[in-house]
Amino acid sequence: MAEAAGKVWHGGDLAQAKALFPEAPEPWIDLSTGINPIPYPVPALPLSLWQRLPGVRDEAALLAAARETYRVPETAGIVAAPGTQILIELLPCLANTGPVVVIGPTYAEHAVAWRKAGMDVRESATPAEAGDAGVVVLVNPNNPDGRVIERAQLTAVARDLAGRGGLLVIDEAFIDFMPEASLIPELPPATLILRSFGKTYGLAGLRLGFAIGEARLTEALRAALGPWAVAGPALHIGAQALSDTDWLAAAAGARASDAARLDALLASRGVIVGGTSLFRLLATPDAPALFAHLGRDGIYVRRFQNNASWLRLGLPGDEPSWQRLAAALASFLPPDAA
Amino acid sequence: MAEAAGKVWHGGDLAQAKALFPEAPEPWIDLSTGINPIPYPVPALPLSLWQRLPGVRDEAALLAAARETYRVPETAGIVAAPGTQILIELLPCLANTGPVVVIGPTYAEHAVAWRKAGMDVRESATPAEAGDAGVVVLVNPNNPDGRVIERAQLTAVARDLAGRGGLLVIDEAFIDFMPEASLIPELPPATLILRSFGKTYGLAGLRLGFAIGEARLTEALRAALGPWAVAGPALHIGAQALSDTDWLAAAAGARASDAARLDALLASRGVIVGGTSLFRLLATPDAPALFAHLGRDGIYVRRFQNNASWLRLGLPGDEPSWQRLAAALASFLPPDAA
Repeated sequence: MAEAAGKVWHGGDLAQAKALFPEAPEPWIDLSTGINPIPYPVPALPLSLWQRLPGVRDEAALLAAARETYRVPETAGIVAAPGTQILIELLPCLANTGPVVVIGPTYAEHAVAWRKAGMDVRESATPAEAGDAGVVVLVNPNNPDGRVIERAQLTAVARDLAGRGGLLVIDEAFIDFMPEASLIPELPPATLILRSFGKTYGLAGLRLGFAIGEARLTEALRAALGPWAVAGPALHIGAQALSDTDWLAAAAGARASDAARLDALLASRGVIVGGTSLFRLLATPDAPALFAHLGRDGIYVRRFQNNASWLRLGLPGDEPSWQRLAAALASFLPPDAA
Repeated sequence: MAEAAGKVWHGGDLAQAKALFPEAPEPWIDLSTGINPIPYPVPALPLSLWQRLPGVRDEAALLAAARETYRVPETAGIVAAPGTQILIELLPCLANTGPVVVIGPTYAEHAVAWRKAGMDVRESATPAEAGDAGVVVLVNPNNPDGRVIERAQLTAVARDLAGRGGLLVIDEAFIDFMPEASLIPELPPATLILRSFGKTYGLAGLRLGFAIGEARLTEALRAALGPWAVAGPALHIGAQALSDTDWLAAAAGARASDAARLDALLASRGVIVGGTSLFRLLATPDAPALFAHLGRDGIYVRRFQNNASWLRLGLPGDEPSWQRLAAALASFLPPDAA
């Protein structure tokens, strides 16, 4: 089960699963990400979207849809990028006073990006422990444990940071199904909020993400990205999907049911730490053995570099996958029981 | 005909054309870019390309195809990005000793990106005038005039720059139809070469570009982009198209014929400065009047911020467009003849 040393682990690459478990039955069931397995239906794409440089009007339509759905205040800025990840890479251009405190454990690439930029980065369990940070970064709801920090607490942190010229970064990648928790509508000063398109809409391959905040922040990111950053098809699909509030509401309900079903399957296998409607985090000392057991059955789940007792599971996308997962979980013999 | 002051002009946005000439007949004929009007046929795309995070294997397949077609030396590095533009934005992270000399006039975004990074940028007409530059940037063949700098001269410039820790950037965005001019196969030290996918393959909306050079340079760009930079569909279409040498050869021949046909149409309207098989540059004191005349006829061509006597024309994509262009050129009355 070797992986490249020094590399940040991620879910979502089945080539890796196949390398780890070459004998596993196909097709693989990929539960290693928090991507909605029932995607927004990809509409027919006019050839011109592929042919032409992405147009200003197409981008404006996408941003208008995002403003509406994310409830972006009129005075705030918004910028679209080819995935949230590249925005994370660019965030260090927005701040030059550290230290950077990442509230974690959380999505590992945040700390990586700030360290790459030469900033001093440390991890705190809560924003209250961030001390004299110049930058506070948190994921809300958090990945992988689903913890939600209340808006009032976030606003206080933002005000505090604004007072000393700092920056609060809130990655709301998994908030679409619980929009009432978003800080966007009351956007505090010195705050930049990231939103991801691909997870909720099940289209992670399309690459689309957003940053929302004071215009000086979003304009700096826009300048760093340069023109035509988002592909034409992504502008088009994103605008259509983000305007489809009926789809979002239906998906929120369906995925919440799925998450409850997953919890029921996992309950006898450990403690469900938390999660969102797109993934659940299981804690058990048997995690390494369960990872291997599921892998040998062709089911790829997410393990963690810094916590060997955690496994994160996304949602199966069809009934046969649910059945295979249920059977695999039922047939697991913990090492000390074997 | 106002445009936002301080903005770099580009072709390719018909919304702008429509704003300039609201009475023009539809459909517009967009000749304002150097994008092949006959695109590589977009293959059917498995839904999984949209759904899943772009996989390591998909990216490896794309890079292998690019290495083969671009004849990248085995020891050189290559990195793919969502468009060449974002690579241009990131280039300043590769060098910190100026001044930056851009061989021009050329594609304006090169100078913009280096200036944004706080570097001292100046323009020279030839590499021989680059003097003590820390970075030399050139487009080969050049946009908009098509000038080609010979490989021997480029190699000498590279060697010179390498000797003082500098960097040579060669943007080969328009070289696909004349691969013998590319410096990639003999990649000199301290040289980074950019290749664009969307122009030759007529799929600019897909966003795909490459940087090729010493691994230390391409790895720095890869780190700056972060994981999953290129969308799944772009990886797939790019790999297929770049492997299709028959298509490339046929397109090269067809576009060369088109370019000759365009030259014949333009010959009586001014001096054809040069160009590539995807665009031609016309010089005439009547350029502003001709731009407006064509615009009123629904034909959008490229004019230039710093040279009012230039117009660049891309290739019409079908016979009705050729006929409309021919008729519009024939009906033009130069101002002093009117």
